[in-house]
Amino acid sequence: MTTNREILLARRPKGTITPDCFTLRESPMPAPGEGQLLVQNLYLSLDPAMRGWMRETRSYIAPINVGDVMRGATIGRVVESRAPDFAPGDLVFGMNGWAEFTSAPARSTRKLPKGLPLPPTAFLSVLGATGLTAYFGLLRIGQPKAGETVVVSTAAGAVGSIVGQIAKIKECRVVGIAGSDEKCTWIRDELGFDATINYKTEELRPALARACPNGIDVYFDNVGGEQLDAALARINLHARVVICGFISQYNSEEPASGPRNYTALLVQRARMEGFLVLDYVKEFEPAVIELAQWVLAGKIKYREDVVDGLENAPSALLRLFDGSNTGKLIIKITGE
Amino acid sequence: MTTNREILLARRPKGTITPDCFTLRESPMPAPGEGQLLVQNLYLSLDPAMRGWMRETRSYIAPINVGDVMRGATIGRVVESRAPDFAPGDLVFGMNGWAEFTSAPARSTRKLPKGLPLPPTAFLSVLGATGLTAYFGLLRIGQPKAGETVVVSTAAGAVGSIVGQIAKIKECRVVGIAGSDEKCTWIRDELGFDATINYKTEELRPALARACPNGIDVYFDNVGGEQLDAALARINLHARVVICGFISQYNSEEPASGPRNYTALLVQRARMEGFLVLDYVKEFEPAVIELAQWVLAGKIKYREDVVDGLENAPSALLRLFDGSNTGKLIIKITGE
Repeated sequence: MTTNREILLARRPKGTITPDCFTLRESPMPAPGEGQLLVQNLYLSLDPAMRGWMRETRSYIAPINVGDVMRGATIGRVVESRAPDFAPGDLVFGMNGWAEFTSAPARSTRKLPKGLPLPPTAFLSVLGATGLTAYFGLLRIGQPKAGETVVVSTAAGAVGSIVGQIAKIKECRVVGIAGSDEKCTWIRDELGFDATINYKTEELRPALARACPNGIDVYFDNVGGEQLDAALARINLHARVVICGFISQYNSEEPASGPRNYTALLVQRARMEGFLVLDYVKEFEPAVIELAQWVLAGKIKYREDVVDGLENAPSALLRLFDGSNTGKLIIKITGE
Repeated sequence: MTTNREILLARRPKGTITPDCFTLRESPMPAPGEGQLLVQNLYLSLDPAMRGWMRETRSYIAPINVGDVMRGATIGRVVESRAPDFAPGDLVFGMNGWAEFTSAPARSTRKLPKGLPLPPTAFLSVLGATGLTAYFGLLRIGQPKAGETVVVSTAAGAVGSIVGQIAKIKECRVVGIAGSDEKCTWIRDELGFDATINYKTEELRPALARACPNGIDVYFDNVGGEQLDAALARINLHARVVICGFISQYNSEEPASGPRNYTALLVQRARMEGFLVLDYVKEFEPAVIELAQWVLAGKIKYREDVVDGLENAPSALLRLFDGSNTGKLIIKITGE
C-alpha cells in the first residue's frame, strides 16, 4: 500500500453540516520522523463535539483549519516505530484524525491496556471519551447520592446511556429523556432506567412532574434549550446541574435563547456547572478499570453503531444531529 | 398611644409595583400572648426581595397573602415582655413587618449585640441581611483569591457596595457595574473599586473587556439579563458566578430570556450557583462581628438612605427598582 486516504475540512458549515464540508484526498504514505509512529487507524470515533471544532471560533480547543485533516480519536495499530516504547503491532489510542494512516508523535499516543477481554472499539465508547465523560461528569460534578433522582438528557446516546447506568449503580432513581419510543424502551427495559420521557411526543413539564415525584437532584444535560429549562423548573434544594453539552445548539448560527429558569438556581440554592473530560486525563486509568469492571459484571451495557469505510464518515456524522443513531458512533476504517 | 398603624398588601402588582398595591390601616394595639413581646418598631428595612414576596407563587418563602401586613425586617424596642429572656427597653431584630407595633414571638426575635459603637440602623444594613448577603455570597460561593478579578453588578447598592469592599479586603481587582456616573464615582473614589462601568452609557462588552484585561474570576450578580450575559462572555477557567438576585426581572410578568452565554460554563468549566443568606443563620454572629470590625477599621464604608414615616414605605419601595436610590433603604417608623 503506497497511498494514504484522508478526509479534510473543505469549508466551515453554516448551520447544519452538509457533505460538501468535507473532501477525501489521496496522499503519499506518511513517513514518521524521530519520536514518531506510523499508525494504521482501525476505528475512528465520531462525536458531537466535532461540530464545535468545525467553527472558526476558538473554544476549549483550537478550531480545525480549512484544508486540514479532520480531527478525531482513533484506535490504530503501530506499523513502524521510531520511538523507544512502541513496537509494530501495538494497539494504540490517539487523536490521529480522519485518515487511514497517520504519523503520530509517540508522546501523545497511548497503548491500550492489555488483559481486558473487551474489543478495541470499547476504548472509543464505554472505556473511551464518552464513557469517561459520563463517569467524571456524573460522579465529580453531579455527585449523586443513594435515593436521589437523576435525570439525563440524550439518555439513549453514548454518554447519556452510561450516565444513567452509573446512577443506577449509585442507587439513584434514574429518569431518561430520549427522542423515540424505541430508545425509551431500550433504556428502560435493557438498561434499567426507572422512567423515561419521549420528548418528541410528550410535553416535558408534566412528564417530568410524573417521572420525578420527588423533584430532581441531579440533571445531566447534553442538550440545552427546552429540556434544560424544563428540568430547572423542577430542581430540588442544592441540586446539581451538569452542563456536558448543548447539542440542540451546535448547528445553530444564531445564539439560542438561554435557560430562563436559571432563577431556580437561587430559589433552590443550586449549582450549574460545566466540565470537560480532558481535565481528568491524569485519572483516566483507574476510571477505565472501574468502568471495565462494571461492563464485565453486566452492570453497564453499551451499544456501538459501527459504520464501514472512512469515506462514509461525513454522512455518518450528520446522523449524530438528527437523532437517528443509537449508541456510540464509530467508523471502521480498514477492511480487515 | 392606643392605636397601631400597619401597611397591608391590598392587591398583587402586575408588573411594576404601584401605590395602590398597599393600604394603611389603623388597628388596635396588639396584646402579646404568653411567650410574646410587644415591640415598637423603630426602623424598617426595604429590600428588592419584597417584590418576590408580593407574587402569588411560592419561592423560597411563602407569598404574602392579600390583606396581610407586609413582611419586613425591623429594629424595634421591647415595650412589654411576656417571655423570660427579654425586658422592656431591649433593642431587638425581627421580621416584624410594616407596622408601628407588633406582637412578636420571643423565639424568632434576636437582641442586638451590645458593645458595638454603631447605630441601630447598621443592623438593617451593613450588619444586617444585606451585609451578610454580601459576606456569605462572596466568601462562600464566590471564593475570591488574592489577585483575581471580581465583578459585581448593582455595585453602588446595599449588597453590591459591600461585596466590592470585601473583595478589596481579599486583595482582588474589583470592577463595579452601576447605573449613573455619580454612583460610579462614589464606588471608585470613596470605596476603592479599581474600575467602574456605567451600564446606562457604556456598551457592556467592550467596557468589561477594558475593565477586566485578565478576564473575570468571580461575577456577583444581582441583576440577571444583559449584564449576566455580558459577564459570562468573559469568565475565566473555573470562574464562579454567584446568583444573588435578578432585579432586572422582578417586575416583569413575562418570563425573561435566560443567559444565552451559559454555554461559557462548559467551555470554561465554570460554576453558576444561587444562594440565600438565610441558609447561614447559624453563622451570623461571627460574621456580624467581622463585618463590624471592618467598618470600625474604616475598611468598609456604607450608605443608608433613611426615609421618615411608615406611610412613605410604599413610595420608597418603588425607588429600589428605578435605580434612584443609593445605599441601604430604611424607613424610620417613629418620630422619636
